[in-house]
Amino acid sequence: MASLHPFDPITADEIRLVVRILEKSFSGVKLRYKRNDIQEPMKKEVIPYIEAERLGQPLPPKPSRLAYAIFHRLDNRAFYKALFDLTSKAVIYAKELPKHVQMQLPPGVVVCTEPWMYGTDTANENRRLFQCYLYVVEINHPENHHYSVPCRFSPVFGITHELVRVDYLPTGLDHTVRETQPWKPVKTVQYAHELLDEPMRQDLKPYIVQQPQGASFSTEGNVVSWQKWRFRVGFNSREGLVIYNVTYDGRNTFYCLSLSEMTVPYGDPRAPYHRKQAFDIGDVGFGITANQLSLGCDCLGHIHYFDGHTVNSSGEPKRLDSVICLHEVDQGLQHKHVNYRTNTATVVRNRQLVVQMICTFANYEYIFAFIFDQAANIELEVRATGILSTTPFDDDTEGTLPWSTTVGPGVAAPYHQHLWSLRIDPAIDGFKNTVFYEDSVPMPISEYNPYGVGYITEKIIMKTSGSAQTSVDRHRVFKMCNANVINPLTKKLVAYKIHTVPSQMPLAHPSTFGYQRAGFATQPIWVSKYKGGELYAAGEFTNQSTSSQNEYSEGIDAWVGRKDPIENEDVVVWHAFGLTHNPRPEDFPVMPHEKINVVLKPDHFFAKNLALDGPPSTQAFNKSVLHEEPFKSVCCSGKAILWQVDQ
Amino acid sequence: MASLHPFDPITADEIRLVVRILEKSFSGVKLRYKRNDIQEPMKKEVIPYIEAERLGQPLPPKPSRLAYAIFHRLDNRAFYKALFDLTSKAVIYAKELPKHVQMQLPPGVVVCTEPWMYGTDTANENRRLFQCYLYVVEINHPENHHYSVPCRFSPVFGITHELVRVDYLPTGLDHTVRETQPWKPVKTVQYAHELLDEPMRQDLKPYIVQQPQGASFSTEGNVVSWQKWRFRVGFNSREGLVIYNVTYDGRNTFYCLSLSEMTVPYGDPRAPYHRKQAFDIGDVGFGITANQLSLGCDCLGHIHYFDGHTVNSSGEPKRLDSVICLHEVDQGLQHKHVNYRTNTATVVRNRQLVVQMICTFANYEYIFAFIFDQAANIELEVRATGILSTTPFDDDTEGTLPWSTTVGPGVAAPYHQHLWSLRIDPAIDGFKNTVFYEDSVPMPISEYNPYGVGYITEKIIMKTSGSAQTSVDRHRVFKMCNANVINPLTKKLVAYKIHTVPSQMPLAHPSTFGYQRAGFATQPIWVSKYKGGELYAAGEFTNQSTSSQNEYSEGIDAWVGRKDPIENEDVVVWHAFGLTHNPRPEDFPVMPHEKINVVLKPDHFFAKNLALDGPPSTQAFNKSVLHEEPFKSVCCSGKAILWQVDQ
Repeated sequence: MASLHPFDPITADEIRLVVRILEKSFSGVKLRYKRNDIQEPMKKEVIPYIEAERLGQPLPPKPSRLAYAIFHRLDNRAFYKALFDLTSKAVIYAKELPKHVQMQLPPGVVVCTEPWMYGTDTANENRRLFQCYLYVVEINHPENHHYSVPCRFSPVFGITHELVRVDYLPTGLDHTVRETQPWKPVKTVQYAHELLDEPMRQDLKPYIVQQPQGASFSTEGNVVSWQKWRFRVGFNSREGLVIYNVTYDGRNTFYCLSLSEMTVPYGDPRAPYHRKQAFDIGDVGFGITANQLSLGCDCLGHIHYFDGHTVNSSGEPKRLDSVICLHEVDQGLQHKHVNYRTNTATVVRNRQLVVQMICTFANYEYIFAFIFDQAANIELEVRATGILSTTPFDDDTEGTLPWSTTVGPGVAAPYHQHLWSLRIDPAIDGFKNTVFYEDSVPMPISEYNPYGVGYITEKIIMKTSGSAQTSVDRHRVFKMCNANVINPLTKKLVAYKIHTVPSQMPLAHPSTFGYQRAGFATQPIWVSKYKGGELYAAGEFTNQSTSSQNEYSEGIDAWVGRKDPIENEDVVVWHAFGLTHNPRPEDFPVMPHEKINVVLKPDHFFAKNLALDGPPSTQAFNKSVLHEEPFKSVCCSGKAILWQVDQ
Repeated sequence: MASLHPFDPITADEIRLVVRILEKSFSGVKLRYKRNDIQEPMKKEVIPYIEAERLGQPLPPKPSRLAYAIFHRLDNRAFYKALFDLTSKAVIYAKELPKHVQMQLPPGVVVCTEPWMYGTDTANENRRLFQCYLYVVEINHPENHHYSVPCRFSPVFGITHELVRVDYLPTGLDHTVRETQPWKPVKTVQYAHELLDEPMRQDLKPYIVQQPQGASFSTEGNVVSWQKWRFRVGFNSREGLVIYNVTYDGRNTFYCLSLSEMTVPYGDPRAPYHRKQAFDIGDVGFGITANQLSLGCDCLGHIHYFDGHTVNSSGEPKRLDSVICLHEVDQGLQHKHVNYRTNTATVVRNRQLVVQMICTFANYEYIFAFIFDQAANIELEVRATGILSTTPFDDDTEGTLPWSTTVGPGVAAPYHQHLWSLRIDPAIDGFKNTVFYEDSVPMPISEYNPYGVGYITEKIIMKTSGSAQTSVDRHRVFKMCNANVINPLTKKLVAYKIHTVPSQMPLAHPSTFGYQRAGFATQPIWVSKYKGGELYAAGEFTNQSTSSQNEYSEGIDAWVGRKDPIENEDVVVWHAFGLTHNPRPEDFPVMPHEKINVVLKPDHFFAKNLALDGPPSTQAFNKSVLHEEPFKSVCCSGKAILWQVDQ
């Protein structure tokens, strides 16, 4: 155990250790495990340790590795959460959770049943329910696309698989349902290559990335080093990929970066669809839905994979192979200047390091990547792809419903939003930071600005925990600075800025459960004072939650209510951003990705462009090839003649 | 000439033809040429021709190729513009331009003098002036970075190089200037690889793109075919790269796509900086500043180059080699779905075709690319890079001025904006189109929306030429549709939508010349009815212009004033977007690029995702390589031991 770092993902042996401790404690009671995972270590213990690592100093005692387990007793179905110190092998606590706290979705129980998080439309539901949307499989091929043919009824089950009721689904403009009709076959819109009607494209030629000297990164366990960057790749079953302890050229930049939550509320107002609102991290988890990646499928070039571990219901560790991949990408030019006096070009390409995870939530896929470059930028790229969630509808509604798009015969894809929370725990040259925003504003016309063209920036420091708005019109930029460190050249505080993604916030009415459960998404920027365990923007238990201000499952909207002082403190920034996705037919049956990028950029953190020392972009290095036209000269093709000037 | 298409760039022989015609007309008068270029052909003649091409029908008579020349007489310095029919070799008109119309910037006349567009601060300036900012060259190396050491005085010259006056530059917080001081040497911030103080990075390993079967595109002259796309690459000295007659699988999508204008107003309020406002297209031209690209420098893989032609001042054609490049890029995954029931992945990568041009405007560079993909998307990507325009300042101002950033000793980079106009001439399944926008809005709570979660879209059709706002809060999406063509599946009009870039508009006061000259940038969306010759968003003659509503040089803000009906008409959409760029020290001496992307996406134009038939992403096709850690197992390194569970 001496070799494990507090940020390393949980191991199989650690999962077994936790299970053995619990079996002793609950002697004679059968337990069913939902989660058994690494817990973020105590930050106040970790910081001296990672600082000593960074500075090459003698290491203080290693901080305890912590783990938690969520499980229920099979005798009385009570839910528990327990916390463990893996180092001392001690239970820190084991507590029963209240009845209305619901854990994540059970696996499918019927072929082509799609179990969905039940969602919320009452504060008084203590049963753990799931709603099964059913789909017809037309032909007997394993890759048949069932989402293309949704059924018109939907059973609701309880936790022990007892049928609670059957919902009949509305298929027209209001909430009424029609009597069940005899099945009329419809044509399935297929996506699998072998089931397509049309022939495959034959004219796309191979594109191969060669790295004859290997990759430029190196790994040692979960530590990655690349181009002056150094960080640790973390993994857990809830957030999946987490980036810890990021330094650039030995300077601290970020303590932790993670996708903290996402919610997908649907805009179809008809029951039972009004309850469709996924919390894909809280209800299910990015880690346990992470694709096991394979060579040549998801990335090009030289690829390194990281594994993870999760627990099965009986307490056995389960290895998740290759859930995170690491590879380099050439992303075009980083910078270029041509000295027109000498016609000399200075060109450096934009090599990037990509740490990627792909998650499948039944029908839908998300591709998440943290991308590092040589100019000290870090980018979070989110791609949304996969299959739209579908509903049946009546063809006699003239083919359109106002809240959805027809994507095939009798099948519609409702409008919805994707709203993410990026959790940024900054460590800008140290662990006490200040957050402010800067607006670009015109100078008033005066003796200092007689021509009316001057503009300056206005700086607003966030002094107590709370939220802030983005502003396109004012070009608002959020910055995380260290109030104790001044850039000697510019005399400004060292900082990183956030290129935010200003987005439409939830469209649900503020009085709805849908809105109140997703408090994190109602403001684009939140800043809280760090507190151990405050990791999940919508609260720890989102399934059938009624609000993220519930005392058992608080989210960021609750935490900022403490009005903590946050100037020159250990702060956390939460950026909510998203897509309003009103589907196109072109998004079906599998949608071409929609891409969103949030970028973190150094801002007065360095004295100059850090990519200057990147190797010059030259033919000797890049080995490009001149494309030859099949017809070298139009004169020879017999189609064209040279134009003769006769004037 | 029979072989030349009306969209093809001007040829050397055509430039000579125009010069010969003018020499005859102005017999005995010496002429000095500024522009001699292709003119957009008559759209009403071109459409039947390109439609016959598209449909494989017998071709009607080829439309006339048109050219224009801008020149002045050396005897009386009068400026002229003439239009020619190259097919009939006839002059269509030759007219003298009014005195206050100023052509573009002359080339540098003194070493390390940087001639700048004079800009405008009076409506009564008929002289053609230019302002020379001077820089000190510290050492005798050709790549020394002179922008790092600006001088404190700046001569103003007239067209015949007569000195008009010397401006002494303010270096503090107000407009006052200081007495000239003896030269104090300062350390230059260098960017050229051979002048860097620090050693080069040695740990970036080669990354080579191999296309063993060649590129997937084909070219025939200026026609490009790739993955069901077909279009013509145009080039002219003003706009540089222009994309014409874009079809997908034989269907019309766009008649023309081009960068129409850009302006860069500076926020430094002090004279003479208040006049700093570049119009890089109108004052100079993307075509004549386009870099001559070379293999291995700017792109990887198989690359095709297009040449262009311009004219020198004595009327000789000048070939511009390799000003546009064409190549493919792998841009990660296009779509992915994993069937969790069978664990089968359907994956298609996002291969793109990039048509690229890079322009150098003295200190600064822009990289423009139109990017096509297999899902029928077209993206305009703009990268801003190069060297910031700099000003000298007094070190005793405590290192900061409120409208600029210190980037080196005694040198500051003022805040500025980059504002572009993308001109979109749509041809969505035909040449008569309608523009509308759609907002995502909550449904009121009612019997149709009892749970308050429903939302729908609100559609607003633009009926007369004018402008419109973007809206993040309403998730406003602009669409170009064909009101005569209905998608049979969805019953909606076929359309393409624009993923706009909501941006801060000009910060200059509306009363200023800076604002009035940049009318195009004051609204993010304009829609006009097509009219021949209306190509340039800020007017044809921007140098020292006073307004884009001037009768000799009207821009889009003037044209929409006609209040033309634009429903189901030949319409043009102009999208103004930009960056407010308050420099970071990390942007100096050459800035890592800032990237902006505008995307055009089919919207009810097709029945489903068009990339489904792309080849599956497999190891056999991609040939990726597993990265091996130097230490295969931590147990062998002596650093770690396996953890023994003893509980």
